[in-house]
Amino acid sequence: MKTALHILKVGGHLVNDAIALQEVLAAFAGLKGAKLLIHGGGRHATALAKQLGISPKMVDGRRITDAAMLEVAVMSYAGLSNKKIVSQLQKQGVNAVGLTGADGNCIEAVKRPVLDIDYGFAGDIIQVNTAVFSSLTIQDFVPVLCAITHDKNGQLLNTNADTIAAQVAVAMSKAYDVTLFYCFEHAGVLTDINKPEDVISRLTKEETENYTKAGIIHQGMVPKLHNGFDALNNGVKEVIISNVATLLDANAPKTTLI
Amino acid sequence: MKTALHILKVGGHLVNDAIALQEVLAAFAGLKGAKLLIHGGGRHATALAKQLGISPKMVDGRRITDAAMLEVAVMSYAGLSNKKIVSQLQKQGVNAVGLTGADGNCIEAVKRPVLDIDYGFAGDIIQVNTAVFSSLTIQDFVPVLCAITHDKNGQLLNTNADTIAAQVAVAMSKAYDVTLFYCFEHAGVLTDINKPEDVISRLTKEETENYTKAGIIHQGMVPKLHNGFDALNNGVKEVIISNVATLLDANAPKTTLI
Repeated sequence: MKTALHILKVGGHLVNDAIALQEVLAAFAGLKGAKLLIHGGGRHATALAKQLGISPKMVDGRRITDAAMLEVAVMSYAGLSNKKIVSQLQKQGVNAVGLTGADGNCIEAVKRPVLDIDYGFAGDIIQVNTAVFSSLTIQDFVPVLCAITHDKNGQLLNTNADTIAAQVAVAMSKAYDVTLFYCFEHAGVLTDINKPEDVISRLTKEETENYTKAGIIHQGMVPKLHNGFDALNNGVKEVIISNVATLLDANAPKTTLI
Repeated sequence: MKTALHILKVGGHLVNDAIALQEVLAAFAGLKGAKLLIHGGGRHATALAKQLGISPKMVDGRRITDAAMLEVAVMSYAGLSNKKIVSQLQKQGVNAVGLTGADGNCIEAVKRPVLDIDYGFAGDIIQVNTAVFSSLTIQDFVPVLCAITHDKNGQLLNTNADTIAAQVAVAMSKAYDVTLFYCFEHAGVLTDINKPEDVISRLTKEETENYTKAGIIHQGMVPKLHNGFDALNNGVKEVIISNVATLLDANAPKTTLI
């Protein structure tokens, strides 16, 4: 039997809310056994870019990471957010070690090929190398990974944190029984964004497609669910989408992908 | 006999000069055996602060790290500089892992007590915990440490990189034969700042005091030498002050503390 490993992905909204973040980190600190945290960035990077006079570039509603915006993302995610999380976890007695995908070459990516749109320094993952995670985890260090990767040719890249979480969970599932937990502000996947109590408790890929077509599942959830099912179908034991309450109470509402 | 460990401290001037930095990192990549890099920050943080409308606060010629300046330092040192160095080293085939003192709780510091001057979020080192360095080094990862520490109570702190280098060298010398190499823009300690070829090849603590009193050694060198002799007197095998040439040619001019 493999050792259990909890992988917690903390959304950007929570990272940028000091009180909510503290609550999540305290709950994470309480999790027994091997664990790994992955965090997004979000509003702080946008605010920093604005302060620096860098205007976000959007094409078809997708953000473009130009060179200036990449530097902002690295400073915000790998600098401020990652080190705040690490120092808060250290305070809670968790021996956290902050990482980007460049550290220990743990996430190799490739700059997204230019087809219709040039996404700039957006990185598509080509390989997760688990050596640094395993080496740290075995010695009771807790990896804290942010949404920056690299191409192993000196170029840092910006990669979606939900995708990183799924890919890391898949790679780690070769050696561990992995529970991947997407922690965000809602109790789970909702049938009505205005009714936070209407949580879908168990969700199949087929139901997801039907709900999406019917406009019941919010568009913003679709990539997260795509990543979640991808993880589930590639060796991850359990994928949960919920909020911090689930970490504290096993009976709290949540969405489990099945 | 202990294993050899090279600790290279790279000064802020070099970190901020892309070509000089690449040269240093290529030379560092060529060093055989266990190694660890420590880097300062410098001009990028000052420029970033200026762009953000934060004016550096100075008291008696010493920089004060207020809350805004600390965030800038964390973003610049732990974010941009550290991750640029890590990704460049990865390109050179060095399996680098970037760290602050908060990561793996490797450098615990205390906010400098307020006596005459309140230095703000300046951290004085109270303990170096070598566990994360040893754990990484044994598995051929190369730690890359920047000048940010923490108080293990959730507060990040700004600490002088030369002091970090000396303290880490001392702590690692219990298990390794450590060579501490302060790499900066000059070939060594000079008897005349305008004559870069006048390198003092061997320097004792007594000579340093005499040269300093006589105004021969530049004031800016004094803290570095103080840190260097501190390391030498506390178990570090060799302390060298020089530039990148020494890494490439054992016969290049350098200052060795004796």
